[in-house]
Amino acid sequence: MTHKGRSVAVKVGLLGLGTVGAGTAAILLDSAGRHPLMADIEVYRVGVRSLTKPRPVAIAEEHLTTDLEAIVTDPDVDIVVEVIGGLEPARSLILKAIHAGKHVVTANKAVIARYGDEIFTAANEAGVYVLLEAAVGGGIPVIQPLKQALGVNRIHAVTGIVNGTTNYILTRMQQEGGDFEPILADAQALGYAEADPTADVDGLDAADKIAILASLAFGGRINLADVHSEGIRHVSAADITYADQLGFVIKLLAIARRDTCPVSNEVLDQLQLRVHPTLVPKSHPLASINDVYNAILVEGEPIGQVMFFGPGAGAGPTASAVASDILSIAASLKSQAAASPGPNPLLACSHQHYCKVSPMADIVSRFYVRLLAQDQPGIIGQLGTCFGNHEVSIESVVQIDLHDGVAEIVVVTHEVQEANFQTALDEVRAFAGIQTVPGVLRVL
Amino acid sequence: MTHKGRSVAVKVGLLGLGTVGAGTAAILLDSAGRHPLMADIEVYRVGVRSLTKPRPVAIAEEHLTTDLEAIVTDPDVDIVVEVIGGLEPARSLILKAIHAGKHVVTANKAVIARYGDEIFTAANEAGVYVLLEAAVGGGIPVIQPLKQALGVNRIHAVTGIVNGTTNYILTRMQQEGGDFEPILADAQALGYAEADPTADVDGLDAADKIAILASLAFGGRINLADVHSEGIRHVSAADITYADQLGFVIKLLAIARRDTCPVSNEVLDQLQLRVHPTLVPKSHPLASINDVYNAILVEGEPIGQVMFFGPGAGAGPTASAVASDILSIAASLKSQAAASPGPNPLLACSHQHYCKVSPMADIVSRFYVRLLAQDQPGIIGQLGTCFGNHEVSIESVVQIDLHDGVAEIVVVTHEVQEANFQTALDEVRAFAGIQTVPGVLRVL
Repeated sequence: MTHKGRSVAVKVGLLGLGTVGAGTAAILLDSAGRHPLMADIEVYRVGVRSLTKPRPVAIAEEHLTTDLEAIVTDPDVDIVVEVIGGLEPARSLILKAIHAGKHVVTANKAVIARYGDEIFTAANEAGVYVLLEAAVGGGIPVIQPLKQALGVNRIHAVTGIVNGTTNYILTRMQQEGGDFEPILADAQALGYAEADPTADVDGLDAADKIAILASLAFGGRINLADVHSEGIRHVSAADITYADQLGFVIKLLAIARRDTCPVSNEVLDQLQLRVHPTLVPKSHPLASINDVYNAILVEGEPIGQVMFFGPGAGAGPTASAVASDILSIAASLKSQAAASPGPNPLLACSHQHYCKVSPMADIVSRFYVRLLAQDQPGIIGQLGTCFGNHEVSIESVVQIDLHDGVAEIVVVTHEVQEANFQTALDEVRAFAGIQTVPGVLRVL
Repeated sequence: MTHKGRSVAVKVGLLGLGTVGAGTAAILLDSAGRHPLMADIEVYRVGVRSLTKPRPVAIAEEHLTTDLEAIVTDPDVDIVVEVIGGLEPARSLILKAIHAGKHVVTANKAVIARYGDEIFTAANEAGVYVLLEAAVGGGIPVIQPLKQALGVNRIHAVTGIVNGTTNYILTRMQQEGGDFEPILADAQALGYAEADPTADVDGLDAADKIAILASLAFGGRINLADVHSEGIRHVSAADITYADQLGFVIKLLAIARRDTCPVSNEVLDQLQLRVHPTLVPKSHPLASINDVYNAILVEGEPIGQVMFFGPGAGAGPTASAVASDILSIAASLKSQAAASPGPNPLLACSHQHYCKVSPMADIVSRFYVRLLAQDQPGIIGQLGTCFGNHEVSIESVVQIDLHDGVAEIVVVTHEVQEANFQTALDEVRAFAGIQTVPGVLRVL
């Protein structure tokens, strides 16, 4: 990108410096190796509760303030990033930022699910963006694909495992055959569930998220009260066992689906919106999403099914999502900054140089080798010595006697350098006792 | 979106009307229920080999031409969509379109992997976009997330199952214990493999794709000759069996990874680029990607791991990807069309109305019910009659005797209307023989 807007930094006003805020600042303050445009984004002001609290990121003191209102009205701020969480003052600050002509990035699913109508109406009137990739699925890019790449489809359904806490509890119940209460208590002790677990285990957090996903997938606003929500408190170890025997796992699914007439199968102009524990066939893509991971399955015409999978929470992933929204807005601002608008740097190709590529001989990996050998004493010893001479360390060797004095030997190595392995293998091929080496494969 | 550019249609010149071209036209010609901006995109000219061949989509004859050069230089065309495939004339037409100031959308991985340098250099000079979502992973949105949402990360590795044909063959070899050659022949008969399967089974198609993914993930161009490529011809049923016993499945992986020093573990400014059959631990997210499906796992800092999963080929999914690129460019053109640039409609909120939501009572789904009952004759008959009276059809009933004359009964229903089910269940709860109904869950 070489157009005129390039050198002007995009100024970010960050509201909150908790785990997500600090993670976001860490990305923005250390832009090497990321998208080149990241270097043009500046952490301009940061709103915190206390100026003296120690921080995990180094923010110069003159950028810190406890006056959050001053940030959202600061004429120099281009993008306000709301990562304080909770309903108020988050909602009011977002609205004030919009009215002051700021673009907004938020991770606040609760505010968006409840006040999305108010917020997006204000944003459209003010001609600013409100982006919220971090509100659903942590670091998984799902909001942007739903708004953009998948938008050409007629979406039939969005089905997600969007709450990591309940997925962690259900996974442990499944794996240990345990009951809800003790595993919840353990999850709380381990920090996977909050002291007041209501929002998670009663499905309210998932309801917020499916309301947001449905709004984007189906192009309309959602009354949060319309989302039916059941949690996982009543799921018992017995249910999980029976479900298992019937070929299912139990998952807390958040479902948004365009409704069809049960008689004519005709597509209706209304949605199903529901969160409830669900028996999922073991062959279904969502059945194998375990622990705190999230996944969102999108079905539509003509795409069929696509699924997005990743960490549903955590400072790093969530900060990645927040930063990606900042990048999108910065790219849009950059492309319009010049007197004559230039290309959007996120759509254009941003590099010209060639990457340097390592020769295969230098690559380090594990190997699987299958050899056919005369079944004679010492062949494995010979193999081991030869591999050892070339620094190829062996993880396992299995010898299977076949027939007519022929044995099949399967070797798995530790991580070794390709050149060493290939040299050793060439020597092995030349052994008197080795007939062929039909299988040589790398191991991930 | 209400800015001035709105009413001007974006004109698409489509090169090729094969399966992908026809699929793309079908999306563009039938925009209801898709992103509102799709209504402003016009299939303006379509280049075909024969004007008289029957088509799966209705294109008015005056839009068809056999003169593809005339399309790429037509002053009225905004976006040229190249879906003819092959190296020439695709490459020349793309370059001519760029020189004529057209934005380009292509599904042509072979051209981009070989001539990307030439094409993107020309595009940057001309100030036009060349988008290629369909070149990798069929309908899975992966190019756009790599360029945009994931761009804030330092990418460590991109690992993909990006060739559906080989994944289909390996999956069948795994499931049937069969050998490569007969399953390849069967895949050819079924249309999953081409008559000349070289590009697929020798890993060349996957090499093209990982070169493209690496270029985007690591922000540099890739010499295709630098990609080490091994196919699956030498993978035998024996290898798959041994791998299985060792806890692995064999997948053709395309790997792009920032290399690290094997001694210091320091990150080097060079890449590993390789395609080869690989033993993948069964617990790895890529291990469960079967049949013709594709998946791309992206690892980076701070996001950790995210995976994109979906159909890697097929007219519908590929057309979805092509259309999504057209939409991205159209949005960019729209936001710059007015005298003063407006918001990008893909980033802004595009709807104002509320969605209508079906009441839970109307939802149709399967149910799982667990009841504790007195172990007395006829209880299952009573249950069945009651459910039947309310049109609740039962798929399976299992009764397990517990202790002290108490039995646990597990019922799974067919698809039934929620209101009917709940009414029936209320009656069941009132049965003299029923103690409690501790488990009521929906089935996907």
